[in-house]
Amino acid sequence: MAQGFSVADHDFMARALRLAELGLFTTTPNPRVGCVIVSEGRVVGEGWHLRAGGRHAEIHALQAAGEAARGATVYVTLEPCSHHGRTPPCAEALLAAGVTRVVAAMEDPNPQVAGQGLAMLQHAGVLAECGLMAAEAREINIGFVARMTRSRPWLRLKLAASLDGKTALQNGASQWLTGAAARQDGHRWRARACAILTGIGTVRHDDPQLNVRGVDLLTSAFHESRARDSQIAPLSHAGEGPGERGTVTTSVVAGVFSSDGRLRQPLKVLVDSRLELSLDARVLCDGHVLVAAALADQRKIEALAERGAEVVLLPGPGGRVDLLSLLKELARRGINEVHAEAGFALSGSLLAADLVDELLLYLAPCLLGDAARGMFDLPPLESLAGRRNLAIHDLRSLGPDLRLLARFNQV
Amino acid sequence: MAQGFSVADHDFMARALRLAELGLFTTTPNPRVGCVIVSEGRVVGEGWHLRAGGRHAEIHALQAAGEAARGATVYVTLEPCSHHGRTPPCAEALLAAGVTRVVAAMEDPNPQVAGQGLAMLQHAGVLAECGLMAAEAREINIGFVARMTRSRPWLRLKLAASLDGKTALQNGASQWLTGAAARQDGHRWRARACAILTGIGTVRHDDPQLNVRGVDLLTSAFHESRARDSQIAPLSHAGEGPGERGTVTTSVVAGVFSSDGRLRQPLKVLVDSRLELSLDARVLCDGHVLVAAALADQRKIEALAERGAEVVLLPGPGGRVDLLSLLKELARRGINEVHAEAGFALSGSLLAADLVDELLLYLAPCLLGDAARGMFDLPPLESLAGRRNLAIHDLRSLGPDLRLLARFNQV
Repeated sequence: MAQGFSVADHDFMARALRLAELGLFTTTPNPRVGCVIVSEGRVVGEGWHLRAGGRHAEIHALQAAGEAARGATVYVTLEPCSHHGRTPPCAEALLAAGVTRVVAAMEDPNPQVAGQGLAMLQHAGVLAECGLMAAEAREINIGFVARMTRSRPWLRLKLAASLDGKTALQNGASQWLTGAAARQDGHRWRARACAILTGIGTVRHDDPQLNVRGVDLLTSAFHESRARDSQIAPLSHAGEGPGERGTVTTSVVAGVFSSDGRLRQPLKVLVDSRLELSLDARVLCDGHVLVAAALADQRKIEALAERGAEVVLLPGPGGRVDLLSLLKELARRGINEVHAEAGFALSGSLLAADLVDELLLYLAPCLLGDAARGMFDLPPLESLAGRRNLAIHDLRSLGPDLRLLARFNQV
Repeated sequence: MAQGFSVADHDFMARALRLAELGLFTTTPNPRVGCVIVSEGRVVGEGWHLRAGGRHAEIHALQAAGEAARGATVYVTLEPCSHHGRTPPCAEALLAAGVTRVVAAMEDPNPQVAGQGLAMLQHAGVLAECGLMAAEAREINIGFVARMTRSRPWLRLKLAASLDGKTALQNGASQWLTGAAARQDGHRWRARACAILTGIGTVRHDDPQLNVRGVDLLTSAFHESRARDSQIAPLSHAGEGPGERGTVTTSVVAGVFSSDGRLRQPLKVLVDSRLELSLDARVLCDGHVLVAAALADQRKIEALAERGAEVVLLPGPGGRVDLLSLLKELARRGINEVHAEAGFALSGSLLAADLVDELLLYLAPCLLGDAARGMFDLPPLESLAGRRNLAIHDLRSLGPDLRLLARFNQV
């Protein structure tokens, strides 16, 4: 399908993909989508989806284009929707605006759409094409695609280790192995995730807050995008809320921060089979906590509920939480991307159960020695043929450290 | 000193550095040196040092330049020598040829030269300058600089590990963790080293040949250099031996291969404190073996001598070889770069004794689990402050694997 697209087609779709990325931290549980409307070789409108319940990318772009949309070509990173969700179908809006060609990067993996949006356009005489820069489009919505196609979120397991594969000293000391740049980068990955997953061992040992902090998402999303395409914004995007039709800056602020001005925080998910979580744990401080347990301790469940934490019972073999059931439960709750920051035991269990999609590994250029703690508790292998293979997807330097993204699965 | 050099100066020195690299596999124990002679903005002669006992880079370049050297500028990656070694001093030859300016990338760290070459030129009225692209020049001769300045070779410790820092399964299986590209790259690093160091444990377990094989050094040195500077050669280098004044190809062949047509093989150095080496070990098959022992077992020493291996007694504490003494002994024998491929125990001992200068780490994108073998036997740390810090010097992909060069020390 990708044959026959022109260089200009690629340029405009690349721009739409950059716009889609502006929704990286905010669209959950919806996909990130960007849209560019082009008439006679000129961009007449563009937009992106900012948050669930708000307008879709196509609607923003159509509003910006106004009458200029008539006879225009629409580049959109995901097939326009055909169903009535919280907003009316975009395919209908595109038809009403009189566009004559729609290029989608990929079909919507949502079974409620799955080609019907494009079919609706085609039936109405619009030239509807699909598959331009599809790999890039899938990448932006890796979690959404995973949830839609396999009813499980995309699970990214984050670890920081020394060059000899150690995450902490034998006495547990691990702060800080990596430098400030790597730690801040880790918070950006937390911020794009819909949920942060950890185990009771980590909570007991480190008492983490498990929230996103110390990272300026506004500048990170906005400036990264600006650096790549200096022409994007602040011209024609129709913003949400107070800054209606404001600049990109206003729009991003409106999306990343909730109405009370606080940063959107991912759901905190804790695997705590025996409900050992202390009511004083810092993870409970600002809500958004889901505790997965295998034990129906009603008093503890109520005490946790009073602290704003919901307990879900997902008993598996051996009195432990069934991790696959937990991920399916998260998918049911609209979680696309899970960012796991777990210890030796839970990381090993997730790997052993084949639930990890990719490893986000920060390597600090130091050695801790063999007595220090390893990365994963995995059963011993009999032969090298049994090793777990990954593919390096991305590799970069962050200050003195390295960041490596390695995948078990592909999107 | 590097101030005041022009863009053209940098260009010509960069060319001289590329030429120096053509001696990467052959000049031991001498440094790799390249030379470019420029008259009126035009290269009139160039050359590089090919092997010890042969002509120095400056002499090759002067021969190529002939009369054009008069009044010319000479770019040389290492200060011209002032002493009578196996060949007459280059500084004298440059004076005799009537050059008027000499730019050296760095002073010769050899205490027999150490600035005297440049001083000799300066006294004779030649404009002698030093320090242009010095860091690059030191890098090419990292081992020579180490040996001259601290009487120890540069020690590069090579390891292949999984992403979780494991080098082999608990049952010892480790072939092959990395892919063909990484393994071939490893042989190129062996080839540039003057010696390959290992321990008796590795010999007993793997029975390695410890030689350089399966790598086309000719194409690797020649084509890498060509790729960077398509203007280099085959024009004006005065070759050695049968291909006198031949092309670069002929010269490199003449240098990498010894007179009987075989590849130059690094010295094989084995740490074998109790002289446990089997007389059938494959490491003994093609000679060039030095065994470091702590035990004067005369019969074994004689039996090994019959197999072409020399034993050197370097007893240290605990009946083990004194590793620092071994490295000093290697330096005395003209060894610049040591390539160590050792197991868990010797790698740990070298690190613990602070004798490792850099880590050449191949990371295979797989996980082996915590029961598998770790990288180094190092004493446990009490606090993170005691960790061994490195700096990432180079990072690249080799097929599916990563290669990482991380340094404890700087040149």
